[in-house]
Amino acid sequence: MKFKYVIGVDYGTLSARAIVVDVRDGRTLATAVQEYPHGVMDQTLPDGTPLPKDWALQHPQDYIDVLKYIVPKAVDAAGVKKDDIIALGTDFTASTTLPVDDEGWPLCLKPQYAGEPHAYVKLWKHHAAQDQADRMTAVAVERKESWLAAYGGKVYCEWSMPRLWQVYEEAPQIYQAMDAWVEAGDWLVWQLTGEYTQNSCTAGYKNFYQKRTGYPSEDYFAALDEGLRHVIRDKCTAPILTVGSKAGELTAEWAEQLGLNPGIAVSTGMVDGHVAIFSCGITKPGPMMAIIGTSACYMTLGETYTNVPGTCGVVEDGLMPGFYGYEAGQSCVGDMLGWLVDHLLPEHYAVEAKKQGLSRHSYITALAETLKPGASGLLALDWWNGNRSLLADSNLSGMILGMTLQTKPEEIYRSLMEAAAFGTRMIIEHYRNHKVPITEFRASGGISRKNALMMQIYADILQMPVKVMNTDQGGALGAAIMGAAAAGAECGGYDGLRPATAAMAAKVEVVYEPRTEYRAVYDALYTEYCRLHDYFGRGGNDVMKRIK
Amino acid sequence: MKFKYVIGVDYGTLSARAIVVDVRDGRTLATAVQEYPHGVMDQTLPDGTPLPKDWALQHPQDYIDVLKYIVPKAVDAAGVKKDDIIALGTDFTASTTLPVDDEGWPLCLKPQYAGEPHAYVKLWKHHAAQDQADRMTAVAVERKESWLAAYGGKVYCEWSMPRLWQVYEEAPQIYQAMDAWVEAGDWLVWQLTGEYTQNSCTAGYKNFYQKRTGYPSEDYFAALDEGLRHVIRDKCTAPILTVGSKAGELTAEWAEQLGLNPGIAVSTGMVDGHVAIFSCGITKPGPMMAIIGTSACYMTLGETYTNVPGTCGVVEDGLMPGFYGYEAGQSCVGDMLGWLVDHLLPEHYAVEAKKQGLSRHSYITALAETLKPGASGLLALDWWNGNRSLLADSNLSGMILGMTLQTKPEEIYRSLMEAAAFGTRMIIEHYRNHKVPITEFRASGGISRKNALMMQIYADILQMPVKVMNTDQGGALGAAIMGAAAAGAECGGYDGLRPATAAMAAKVEVVYEPRTEYRAVYDALYTEYCRLHDYFGRGGNDVMKRIK
Repeated sequence: MKFKYVIGVDYGTLSARAIVVDVRDGRTLATAVQEYPHGVMDQTLPDGTPLPKDWALQHPQDYIDVLKYIVPKAVDAAGVKKDDIIALGTDFTASTTLPVDDEGWPLCLKPQYAGEPHAYVKLWKHHAAQDQADRMTAVAVERKESWLAAYGGKVYCEWSMPRLWQVYEEAPQIYQAMDAWVEAGDWLVWQLTGEYTQNSCTAGYKNFYQKRTGYPSEDYFAALDEGLRHVIRDKCTAPILTVGSKAGELTAEWAEQLGLNPGIAVSTGMVDGHVAIFSCGITKPGPMMAIIGTSACYMTLGETYTNVPGTCGVVEDGLMPGFYGYEAGQSCVGDMLGWLVDHLLPEHYAVEAKKQGLSRHSYITALAETLKPGASGLLALDWWNGNRSLLADSNLSGMILGMTLQTKPEEIYRSLMEAAAFGTRMIIEHYRNHKVPITEFRASGGISRKNALMMQIYADILQMPVKVMNTDQGGALGAAIMGAAAAGAECGGYDGLRPATAAMAAKVEVVYEPRTEYRAVYDALYTEYCRLHDYFGRGGNDVMKRIK
Repeated sequence: MKFKYVIGVDYGTLSARAIVVDVRDGRTLATAVQEYPHGVMDQTLPDGTPLPKDWALQHPQDYIDVLKYIVPKAVDAAGVKKDDIIALGTDFTASTTLPVDDEGWPLCLKPQYAGEPHAYVKLWKHHAAQDQADRMTAVAVERKESWLAAYGGKVYCEWSMPRLWQVYEEAPQIYQAMDAWVEAGDWLVWQLTGEYTQNSCTAGYKNFYQKRTGYPSEDYFAALDEGLRHVIRDKCTAPILTVGSKAGELTAEWAEQLGLNPGIAVSTGMVDGHVAIFSCGITKPGPMMAIIGTSACYMTLGETYTNVPGTCGVVEDGLMPGFYGYEAGQSCVGDMLGWLVDHLLPEHYAVEAKKQGLSRHSYITALAETLKPGASGLLALDWWNGNRSLLADSNLSGMILGMTLQTKPEEIYRSLMEAAAFGTRMIIEHYRNHKVPITEFRASGGISRKNALMMQIYADILQMPVKVMNTDQGGALGAAIMGAAAAGAECGGYDGLRPATAAMAAKVEVVYEPRTEYRAVYDALYTEYCRLHDYFGRGGNDVMKRIK
């Protein structure tokens, strides 16, 4: 079983990336990336049809087109023989959903629906189903639906079902015309294998499927609208496979297009954030995985089910099979820093950065690094993009206080970093208070390897070592690990995700130790953060929602 | 009495300005301005002695030097004969105080004290006596001192006595060496006339002097420190003259240096913000004068004494003799806008402003003007420099909430303008609630003629017409009006401030009418502002003070 390779493909918000990975040790041999030609459609459809506020669509042809480009390119760059490639694994941003016919053909690719916004792919950041999400929550609360607790007590507008209800209400003809409402990740696997399945991660975290109880009841959907009584039977029918299972085999047609052998294993899909738990090498309860980029998500494993209000979901087999997977997230981390640098970095900073040959982020980070914790007198709430955990409220907004006439941009920049870390600490303490142990913090994602100051601030505020993993491809590597598990030992892979993860995960590259001398000042600031968090986020003063 | 002229001299924070004014109609013939060579000393003394945090000193020689330059220059530019100049009036920033010997000689000009910070002039924005101010308040509250109510219930660190106590505690040798602790405005008049007097405005608003009851009692000062029992008798002895009285006549020596006739009337001094009430033509209760610049102050007249908590002072004869003068203020108005433009205006805005030939303020103001009230979803508390009215707390700081990833600089800029106007509305409503009628709003000061958008926002938020006066010299013109009153009708002036004001005040130049279509949205935002104001400012959450 030596010299075998797997391909991992990670579908992000703006691009997809393929890597070729050595099955023995997870080493990445080559990478290829390509942006989606249509990007995110949030203003108009390709034919110019305008889109309402808060919409975010994509074009499914893009997913196909980039795949045909990046897989051959990565394989070519890796210089491996196609006979040694034993499997393909994928992950996808979620919930990213589209309506298809019974052969999996996207409705938006049919000429009669090309001008119909609801026929396209709704990207995870499509926020126009907030109303449906709110009504789903209200009905679930009223009916005391037991599944709601597993989702932090709230239906989130970025999930699958509120958008399907939106289609039902706003474009009934599309609702009628679709044979399935499918996650793009599952749709892709369907394309590659010819088999329509769903994966336990996406169905669990993004569509309320629980292994022991299934989907919410028909009575619940009927309480939303009698016409939705059979929504699961009619639109979400495919069998649900545990992540990392073999979903099928690569079809001859696709094998030819990708330059691979037909019949190699194709694993289930998985949510892009969640799949990184394998890259981070987490196979048991204790460690928390943090993907820190524009936003952040946090995954951890538990032996048992615990209701943790305000987190995003608890799903059995949702992450590592055999465990309950716990998910929480922050809507805005790197995005806030980007906002400051894009919108409020003054001219003389930009000029000085250029003179020093630094990026604007690097320049202001260097200034922020010279500041002492707590010295600026600033404190922020990191809600520029709403709050995912623990409040699950997209109508919250950012706040910053403590400004004086001497306040400098780097002080604001640092206070935003600190606010993000306070939000993370709140999530960790919340888990601990609910008996979900968090004993270790492993970070991956764009910011973790690029911004040492931010990781040090996380360590200081969390009062835990922050271990940064040596990969920039947490998603694609995780997908490749799934591929190796789907192939099985017999074909040169592994029998299950645990051994595949143990062999192929990334390694800890840097450890940021918490500095005890800043513990007291950050503890004090964290107390203030919590108080403001509850005041603005838990009903003390709903001003953010009223003035939005 | 035709073709007579008066000179008004306005001493600001960074410069002094002299104008030559026609006594008949207040028309300004010429202006001369000069910056103080030493500016504000907030880092070191001239000899390099470092200054602690929150200090702000000036050099008294500067006041003399600039006067000798600007008066002859303005007279020369006006082309008037010195025989036609009948008087000189002055105003000064306050409380700006210095220790002098019995001849009025500043201690800091004596070689033995040149390296002693406490020997210098403490500028109004010297904030290092906050501790003494707090203790003065506490003792006054404990002793139920009746005068405290006339000062909003709080001793402010920008006033005279806390700094004198600071000198007493921190530099006892200076305290012992001084024969008088004198306001710079009174000190200047002393220099010009050879007579040491105080004016009813500065003594009233900045040192607790009340016409009917005098200074606080010796028992009060003894309760602060037994050594201060006789502080008034020993250090603040001069007779107190009503503003606009003749304080004395110009000495021969000064007449020669200024190119004026000896013996012409010199009026009392007055606080620079307060003297503008004459330029704004306010002679009776009803209209409020607003000076809107880097900070703002608000003056209005009342027939009777009313206790208005949180305002800066109620002083009989403190403004127009015969009335109670009511003062309130905001610590930070234009300064906040300057902060944003100096610290957070992005490069592409700066480049575009230059391209369009606009100042940065003009450019961002034009962008802010296109925004609809309430549309940005932002709300700020205007406390970048603390809060003067109604909270009298220099330890408060700025706050802004409602930011999203789409928030633009011009939206923040506008929200700061709105926050300032909400703060003004709060002051006006507070006066009305305490039966001090405010029926009209007259604005002068830097921003009022330069920023039409800001004045329109004030009109919309106050729901009152904003009348902007046609002068940029509210201070100097007011000083000139005092000069004309000090000269008296016999010498070609007026018998009293009321006729002088009626004849010489500036005129209303523009009226901004409130737009009723924005009333509801601004009323709603104002309600939110008030709630946040009380939460952060009145003990709901003292986070700003704790983290400062």
